[in-house]
Amino acid sequence: MKALLLDHEPRLRDDLPLPVPAADEALVRVRLAAICGTDLAMLRGYAGFRGVMGHEFVGEIVAAAAAPGRIGERVVGEINVGCGRCGECLAGRAGHCDKREVAGIRGRDGAFAEFLRLPLRNLHPVPEGLADDAAVFTELSAAALEIPRQLHLDPTERVLVVGAGRLGQLIARVLRLSGCDLAVVARHARQRALLEAAGVRWIDEASVPARAMDLVIEATGAPAGFALARAAVRPRGRLVLKSTYAGPVETDLSSLVVDEVAVIGSRCGPFPPALRLLAQGLLDPTPLIDARFPLDQALTALEHAGRPGAMKVLLDCGSRPI
Amino acid sequence: MKALLLDHEPRLRDDLPLPVPAADEALVRVRLAAICGTDLAMLRGYAGFRGVMGHEFVGEIVAAAAAPGRIGERVVGEINVGCGRCGECLAGRAGHCDKREVAGIRGRDGAFAEFLRLPLRNLHPVPEGLADDAAVFTELSAAALEIPRQLHLDPTERVLVVGAGRLGQLIARVLRLSGCDLAVVARHARQRALLEAAGVRWIDEASVPARAMDLVIEATGAPAGFALARAAVRPRGRLVLKSTYAGPVETDLSSLVVDEVAVIGSRCGPFPPALRLLAQGLLDPTPLIDARFPLDQALTALEHAGRPGAMKVLLDCGSRPI
Repeated sequence: MKALLLDHEPRLRDDLPLPVPAADEALVRVRLAAICGTDLAMLRGYAGFRGVMGHEFVGEIVAAAAAPGRIGERVVGEINVGCGRCGECLAGRAGHCDKREVAGIRGRDGAFAEFLRLPLRNLHPVPEGLADDAAVFTELSAAALEIPRQLHLDPTERVLVVGAGRLGQLIARVLRLSGCDLAVVARHARQRALLEAAGVRWIDEASVPARAMDLVIEATGAPAGFALARAAVRPRGRLVLKSTYAGPVETDLSSLVVDEVAVIGSRCGPFPPALRLLAQGLLDPTPLIDARFPLDQALTALEHAGRPGAMKVLLDCGSRPI
Repeated sequence: MKALLLDHEPRLRDDLPLPVPAADEALVRVRLAAICGTDLAMLRGYAGFRGVMGHEFVGEIVAAAAAPGRIGERVVGEINVGCGRCGECLAGRAGHCDKREVAGIRGRDGAFAEFLRLPLRNLHPVPEGLADDAAVFTELSAAALEIPRQLHLDPTERVLVVGAGRLGQLIARVLRLSGCDLAVVARHARQRALLEAAGVRWIDEASVPARAMDLVIEATGAPAGFALARAAVRPRGRLVLKSTYAGPVETDLSSLVVDEVAVIGSRCGPFPPALRLLAQGLLDPTPLIDARFPLDQALTALEHAGRPGAMKVLLDCGSRPI
């Protein structure tokens, strides 16, 4: 099959064998995949991954020995695959299993391919009427929904999202549904226009009030973004880190103690509420789509996604019958 | 002025003096008011109130000695007026002040009148573009938003609302925005149709699964509703009481201990998030409007609102210049 393989450099291959699903897995034909900031970070060496890239996709089940009734089902997939035996896995937190594989990121081939394999339990049916173009955002929407899953989002609070890229835009679209007093720090005209169209207020960096926000979400992945976010939190406020950082970041830990600020790391999130919000049209990420390319042009697509201010770039993967 | 006075019986009066605002208060001309379940309960003796009824309204400020700049402002109003000196008031919780007055409910005239007076701090400007017909639901929407203000609404949870009357409908419309797995127990065809139109799943009483729901909201105010809600909560789940009950309700308190269920009382809520959701159209309560009457026909309006299955009845109050 065709796939985009990362092996020091990303390379388009046409000669990879079909993935062979394990007994509890399905073979999924990828219809549409999306490029994420993590993919771009991996091109620069993040996570040291070697294999088929890609972890945001919508596809359809074409083989499933343990559940033949699900063949033909249109699905999105959770990418964390735990060992199934450790305490985290038994508690339903495969995403925190020490031995986990993560499709397209760690030890397991991903979705920039014609096919991928995933455990059946990872695959969620896409509601009828939810277009592929929106469903492909399920993984990113779920990551945004990890915030209200983790913490009490009080609708009377002042909430600031730092960063209006792909993830920041999704987070803003989820948080606005709570009725909270929301603002997003946005640099680029395109980012601002997208927020305005979604009914979200944006501010520039200079206008961020110091020590005033009840809840701040850091979504830039840059040390400068962290510093801005930290400065904006009120004493006893909460600071959620939604991005990973390329290297160590200097932090004044003592000031966190003095101000009694809670810092909360936040990563992958729950698929079912993401699918509910997308299916009801309460969350519409499709204006974030910048461009789409066939899988054949995946290298051009990666380049396009890496441009400053670029939003979502999609890959059409699903042309060939099995 | 004209007003609907409750004095053992409700009576329409045309000879009441204009309210005289205190130094920190405004005089508000009522444009539109709405009849609530509490109003109907008061007709049957609840709260022992004597005075002008009504606590849901939208109006405009016509006099405000302390803030003349606000004259002409279209406003909705929080109805709890605390003493301003006790611990609850100083902590910003006037709604829990022991000496509080509550417009139209306790010790203070309400909104089924041409004018009412309220402290300026209680009055929130209505965003431009938000119609009176929607703004009049602010108080009820705020009551629904008290739930996510009080507790962590996890979007992965199974949530059940028991009761699909005026309040239950608003609660369902707020909770669906969280992406949670929501169902509403609805008896009447009209209630069910309204829920369907709002994208909310309804079930009948017989289909409520026992001990299965993570979070249950009781919004019927009837002991049978409480029993149904209690039976539906899973062990370690949460049960929110949004309605008051006419008399004592028998409860098996020991079973709450055994099942480690948390029961949470919930009343008035925050206006700012309600106005944000209404202004953005994320919350549209206007399909709940059943009928509207001029203030002159307030008695007919009360009767209409008291019919089984009736939704929202509005009173047009704002015809006469000061």
